Order: sequence, then C-alpha cells, then structure tokens
Amino acid sequence: MVRKEALTSLADLQRKMYAYGVAAAALYLDADTVAPKDTAEGRGVALGVLAGEEHKLFANEAVGSLLEELIACKDELDPLVRRQVEVLKRDYDRLVRIPADEYMEYAMLTNEASDVWHKAKEKNDFPMFAPVLEKLVAFNRKFAGYYDSEKAPYDALLNEYERGVSMAYLDNFFAALRERIVPLIRAISAKPQPDDSFLKKEYPVAKQREFSDYLMDVLGLDRSHCTIGETEHPFTLNFNNKDVRITTHYQAHDLASSMYSVIHEGGHAMYELGVADELQYTCLAGGMTMGIHESQSRFYENIIGRSLPFIRAIFPKIQEFFPEQLEGVTAEQFYRVVNKAEPSLIRTEADELTYPLHIMVRYEIEKQLIGGTLEVKDIPETWNRLYKEYLNVDVPDDKRGCLQDSHWSGGSFGYFPSYALGSAYGAQMLRNMEKDFDVWEAVGKGDVAPVSAWLREKIHKYGGAKESAELVQNACGGAFDPTVYADYLVEKYSKLYDL
Amino acid sequence: MVRKEALTSLADLQRKMYAYGVAAAALYLDADTVAPKDTAEGRGVALGVLAGEEHKLFANEAVGSLLEELIACKDELDPLVRRQVEVLKRDYDRLVRIPADEYMEYAMLTNEASDVWHKAKEKNDFPMFAPVLEKLVAFNRKFAGYYDSEKAPYDALLNEYERGVSMAYLDNFFAALRERIVPLIRAISAKPQPDDSFLKKEYPVAKQREFSDYLMDVLGLDRSHCTIGETEHPFTLNFNNKDVRITTHYQAHDLASSMYSVIHEGGHAMYELGVADELQYTCLAGGMTMGIHESQSRFYENIIGRSLPFIRAIFPKIQEFFPEQLEGVTAEQFYRVVNKAEPSLIRTEADELTYPLHIMVRYEIEKQLIGGTLEVKDIPETWNRLYKEYLNVDVPDDKRGCLQDSHWSGGSFGYFPSYALGSAYGAQMLRNMEKDFDVWEAVGKGDVAPVSAWLREKIHKYGGAKESAELVQNACGGAFDPTVYADYLVEKYSKLYDL
Repeated sequence: MVRKEALTSLADLQRKMYAYGVAAAALYLDADTVAPKDTAEGRGVALGVLAGEEHKLFANEAVGSLLEELIACKDELDPLVRRQVEVLKRDYDRLVRIPADEYMEYAMLTNEASDVWHKAKEKNDFPMFAPVLEKLVAFNRKFAGYYDSEKAPYDALLNEYERGVSMAYLDNFFAALRERIVPLIRAISAKPQPDDSFLKKEYPVAKQREFSDYLMDVLGLDRSHCTIGETEHPFTLNFNNKDVRITTHYQAHDLASSMYSVIHEGGHAMYELGVADELQYTCLAGGMTMGIHESQSRFYENIIGRSLPFIRAIFPKIQEFFPEQLEGVTAEQFYRVVNKAEPSLIRTEADELTYPLHIMVRYEIEKQLIGGTLEVKDIPETWNRLYKEYLNVDVPDDKRGCLQDSHWSGGSFGYFPSYALGSAYGAQMLRNMEKDFDVWEAVGKGDVAPVSAWLREKIHKYGGAKESAELVQNACGGAFDPTVYADYLVEKYSKLYDL
Repeated sequence: MVRKEALTSLADLQRKMYAYGVAAAALYLDADTVAPKDTAEGRGVALGVLAGEEHKLFANEAVGSLLEELIACKDELDPLVRRQVEVLKRDYDRLVRIPADEYMEYAMLTNEASDVWHKAKEKNDFPMFAPVLEKLVAFNRKFAGYYDSEKAPYDALLNEYERGVSMAYLDNFFAALRERIVPLIRAISAKPQPDDSFLKKEYPVAKQREFSDYLMDVLGLDRSHCTIGETEHPFTLNFNNKDVRITTHYQAHDLASSMYSVIHEGGHAMYELGVADELQYTCLAGGMTMGIHESQSRFYENIIGRSLPFIRAIFPKIQEFFPEQLEGVTAEQFYRVVNKAEPSLIRTEADELTYPLHIMVRYEIEKQLIGGTLEVKDIPETWNRLYKEYLNVDVPDDKRGCLQDSHWSGGSFGYFPSYALGSAYGAQMLRNMEKDFDVWEAVGKGDVAPVSAWLREKIHKYGGAKESAELVQNACGGAFDPTVYADYLVEKYSKLYDL
C-alpha cells in the first residue's frame, strides 16, 4: 500500500526543488541580461549557498528512503507519479555521489566563469578565460565519474544532454553526415552566390526590437507568458509553463542574426509553454533532453523560418519594418540570402548546411578535452586548425573563434552535439508531419499554429514524462533515421543552388 | 569564553539568510521590471517555498540557543559581532512568533497582491484590488501583535520603518509641520505661478533614457555596480554593496517625473553602495530603517536636485539633451518650475512643500485601517475626502487616487511617514553639513562628490551597525529637531514666491 504521506512528501520535495530552481534561474537570467557588470562575486555567494541548500534538501537519506519506499510499490502508483519517482531516483543516485562542497563550489565556479567569459570575449583574451575553463573541465571530468563511472567521461557527459548518445554513436552520425554534406558544400562553392548586401545595411536596433515583437506574434508566443530580453549570447530560460523568457542579441548591420535567434529561442519557448499543466512543480515540468529541445528550436528556426513559404508569407511585413533597406528586394531573394551556404566563422549565424561542421569542431575539441588528450591552453590552436580543415576558413581571433559560445563557461560539455541531433530529428519530424496535414499550405499563409499544435501533441505536452527516444519515436513516426536529415539538406540545397 | 564554532555558525547563518534574501529580491526585481504579465502564480509558489525554508533556517531552537550563548558572553565579542547578535536576536524574537505557514502564506500574498495591484491600477478598478488588500491589512494587524503585543498595532508597524516612532510622535510632528506649511501654501496660492508648459512638451522616452544615464553619472553612481530598469512605480533594490538596481518610470510629456525619480532612487542607491565592505553578507549589510533611507533619497532629490546651484550647474547639459523643448528657457525658470508649489494628485511628483500633505493623507488612512476604524472598501471615499481637505484637490479616479502607490500591495503599512521624517532629517543634515564645508560651492559646479563623501562618512558606511537615532545624531550634529525642516521649507518657498 502506498502511504499517503509518502506521496505528499514526494510532491513537497519536488515543489521545493522547483523553488530552488526558480531562484537560481532568476539569478542567471538577471546576470546575463540586466545586472551591472561587476557583480559576480555577491551573486556567487548566494548561488553557492542555494546550491548547498538544494543539495541538503535532495541528497539525504530521508529522500533515499522515500524513493525506495515508492519504488517498492511502483505498480500501484499513478503512471505520472511512477515516472517522477524514476526520474528522481536517477537524479538522486547521481547527486548523492557529488559531495555537497563540490556541488556548491561548482555553482560558484560557473557563475564566476560566465562573468570571466563575457569579459574575456569582449577583450578577445583567451588566456584570461583559460584558468576558469581548466577548473570547469576538471570538475566535469570528475562529475562524469559520478554520473557513470563505467563510461568514458565524455560518454557520461553526452548522456546528460541526450540519453543513450555516446562517442561511438556520434562518430558514426557525424561521419555519415559529412559524407553527404561535404561534397554538397564543395559543389556549391563553384556556384555563384546571391548578393547579400541588402542584409548588411543598417537595421536600427530600436526597429529590430519592434520586429522581434512581430516575430514572437507570428510564432504565436503568448506575450503575457513570454518576454524577450537582450544578452551577449541568446538563450531561453523557463521558470514554469506560464513563465518563459527568450533573449536575443542585436547587430545593427545584420538583420538575420537577431531574426533567426528570436525564431530559434522562440522554438525553445514554444516547447516549454506547451508542457501540460499537470506536470507543473514536479521534476517532469521542463522539456526533456537538450537533444529534443534543439529539435524544436531548430525546427522553427530552419525548417519553418528558413523555408520559402514562410518567408513569402512574412516578407511584405518585413519590408514594412525596413522599407528603405529592403527596397526592390523580393521574397525569393531574401530566401536565397538567408539560406546562403557558405563556410563561416560564427556558429549561431551559420547556414543550415554548414552548421553541422561547426558542431563537429566543438565535438572533436570536447572529446579530446574531456578525454584528457587536449589541454585548455591548446584550444585556440586546435580550434583554428579544425575550422581550416572542416570549413576552410581562417579564424582571425579567439573572439570569433573559441570564445564565441557561452556553453563552456556555463559548464556545458557535451551539449553541442544536441544541436546536430536536434536538427536531424527535426527533418524526420517534418516528413512525418507532412503525412498528417499540409504543412506548407498553413505556413504559406504565415500560420504556424497547426505546426505548433502538432508538435505540442507529439512532444511539448509530455515535458519530461517520456524519455527522449519515445518522443523521437512519437514525432518521427518511427525509429530515428539520420539519413532523412541528410536527404533533406541535399534536396533543399540542390534546389537552392541548381545542382 | 566565546566558542569559535559559535562564531562560525553565526557567520554561516547570516550568509544563508543573505542568499535567501538575494533569491527573493531577484524574483521581486524581475516581477516588477521585465517579467511577463501573467506569471505571478508560479513565482508565488517559489516565493512561498523560499519563505518557508528561510523561516525554518532562522526561527528554530538551535539558532535561539546560539544567540543566547553569544549574548551570555557579549562583552567578549567584537563590537560588530555584538551588534549582529543584538539585531539577529531582535529579528529572531519577532520571527519565532510568526508561524511558518503564515509567513509563507504572506510571501505568496504580497506576490499576488503586487500583480493584482498592477492590473487594478491599469484598469482603475479599486474593487479588484480590495480583496487582497483586505487580506494584507488582516495579516499586518496580526503581525503587529507578533512584533509587539503591548503596542497598538499601527505603532508596532511604524516601529518597523523607523525605530521608536509612534502615532503620538507623528501626530505631533505632522501637526507642527502643518501649522507652518499650510499658511505658506495658502499664501502661495495668491501668487502668480511660473509657466511650466515647457516641461510638458514631448520628451521622447529614448532620449530620457540617455538623460537618466547622464544623471546617474552626475550622482557618481558606479555603473558597473548599479544599473537602471523600468517599472510602474520606481524603487531601489540592493543585493549587496556591489550590486544595486534603481528603476524609473518615463512619461513622455513630463521630463521632471523620471528626472527626479532617478535622483531620488539614486540617493537610495548611493546609501547602499556606500555601506562598508566588512558588513557584507551579515545582517548589518543593508541600509538602516526606511526613515534613514528616505532621508538620503530625498536629500539628493530635493535638497540637492531641486536646488538652484545644482540646476544652474547641469542645465546646459539638460538643454543639450532637449534643445528644442528647452529653447529659450533659463536655468532659473527651470528651477522655479521644478519647485512650483501647487497642491496636486500624485505624491511622487509633488513639490517639496505640498509633499508632506500627501504623506499625511496616507498616514491618516493607515492609522484608521490598521486601527480597525476604516474598512478597505471605504478607502477611496476617505482618500478623496482627505485630498480635498488637506490639498483642496478633487481626485478624478482611483488610479490617480488610492491606487497610485505600490506600498500597500507590497504589504507596507507604516512606511509612508518615513518619507516625511526622512525629509525632515535631511534638512537638519544639510545645516550640519554646511558647517563642515561649502556645500553650495561644490554643488554649484555640478560636483556632488563632497556631499556624498560626507553622507558616506556620517551614515552610509555604517549600514545597520548603528541604530537610526545614532545615525540621525551623527549626521544632524544633535538630536532631531523637526523645526529645522519647517524653517528650511519656509525659507526656500518664501524666496521662491517672494513672500
């Protein structure tokens, strides 16, 4: 028999963990958007204490016993409660292996590292960032052992961002992908490129802010539950399914940069806002893995946002916002330019085709870094070499090189592959979605609602209630097949470049 | 002998309380500035849990024993530690009397009330706000009994905002003040008023934002430790002495509104930024009572900010920001207009002379509300009647009437008198400051630094290490004498209106 008190304790524990999560999230959001520059120290003290309190709340024997008790009668549990118990048990087993002082120290370290990274990037000063990065790498290698001591450290970390993913898996995935896209990129390099000068004109930031509001409306983001802020490196943060924030970064001479950041982060937000109410204040309340999350953000960004029907539908409105800059430009020209496939320096601004190569660079570096065959001080050299090798571009400085992304400063090693996996999931979801309704008829009218409703039904509403493999199965209509992604890219870019 | 472990526990406790304070502050700041509109519910759950955890951390027997132990050997303690123990003991005795569930419920209620107030004000709908206001009043009456069951409830609350202050004290203070300022206001009403039309021209908000940055520079606010945000009702929030935020509210057709909000909140920020480093992460880290706090904000706002030397010094710069709006206007005209004494509707925009009458209205209402002789539903009628009686103005709607301030929605009853007391402290501080150096020579050059240095030495650096009476003594150079304030107002306004 399930004790009623045990269920109350379980709910109470999750509510408390939600509250600690909210507190930390509020501090991170503040730090990355509006906080004054030199305030990391005091915030670190608070984050350290809160991490310690959270550790004490969760990683203690009473919680262990509670979970054991509930597991013992799991067949009697409501399926959602059973799932909560399973997820909490997994998290519990992981957290009890991390000593409280290391957990607190790590919370303070990521706070410090984020501050140092912002400054180091601004100053183009990798050696400034290196000492904290070394500490982060050391912590992550140690944590990997706590997560799963039988796996290679990087495999243990990869599993945090997408369940079941390993280096062996990714090596295959990336190799197969490269085989298809590298020849395509080479073929494109022999073709004439569209003139993208109109996209590099001056787009006043104030006007871009209004344009962001419009894009959020197009995505159907409910503004009373989702606002937009500004930051160095765009991200999405969720407090709960009624309170999500996206951020962007405006560049006065690049309309596409913020435009596609807003659509990308908007995709993350749609996911979080679509989680079912019944999961709120439990461990299942947020989106599943980052692999699934990126499948949603990159679906909106690329599959929808960079499609011809979508651009045709919203282009008259874009022109209304920027009549001078886009005078004489057609929707088709705009479409070609935002899909211009050209090896470049910055991942977040890369086109859909060369994008996976940016991921592969990071994957190789992380693999070696966590594996212990690359030292932090050698990252810039390796980064620049791999960019030359994979993308044939020369990296002029670390600011536009290995300091460009915020992920490592936040302690995320193993996150990047999620972008490529998510993109691949997305392509397969599209094919399955197309079987259910005429995707492009709706999108061609600028109506994204049917797409969102479909994704909500297949993915969003489940939050963490289903494992990512189940969600993929659900939305892809079968097992994951990465060739669909390669086919999608080949088809799209062959048409675009008349190959 | 003082046990070393006891001192460590004391420091640890205060660090933890700091962290919970930071978490709640981050959520309040977010809620009042950038959060989406309909997100109060999820935030309330988090705030409720965090309040419960904080209560558990502090209001428990172990802390009681620790404080007893340290009090027993208080003569051996370092003076700052002794002061911490005294302050913590006072807070402890108060908090243990508040049951944890009431404490949590109250945290959730103020969060809800703030949300409801924002919406009710926007809709000019007092009945929408009334039910939560009733709950807040009931809680505050109950809490007053916990604070000090021997005092009348409103006296117990007043003491929270300024130590030792009571209704008897304030009745005298306000009566004496009215006796001096009411005839003055009457005399002014017979005099011609300066033409303030230039101040009501359109001042684009984007330009006002830049102007705020300039004003913060003039005040000497270190922007790497203090940023500015936007909100419905301006406030200042401090995380620690290296991280303070001010907020303002822009009105496109009123330059003075945000200008003096920025200077007022800037005064609060100067105080918090000036607290000594050695007090950080202890219970003494923030500014003392709200009475002292308002003495600083209103000193900068009125005594400095609305002085002729200050305006003369910065007016050329104001004109640079707004050349068209201020074409042909002189510094003297600007000075007269921002000091135009005229009974009005909105407290935060009232001139220095009629301002105390706005406070008296609120004081009368709170006295009756907490005293139990006024019901919430009758507030609008009483408010409007008192505005007519004290200020001879007709209140057109509740939005510009009893819904104008945020204080009650935050659960603050007894706060308002701090503004008047603070103003009075400030006038006496000025007279004392003038003995030490030529205040107006520096201010006349636009240099506020000597004023700030003096205030830091006399008040800011002490944080909560001295009682407010000591701080007043310190900065006023003697016991508090409210006639100095009346004299200051009479002198300033007699000159302004040639009486």
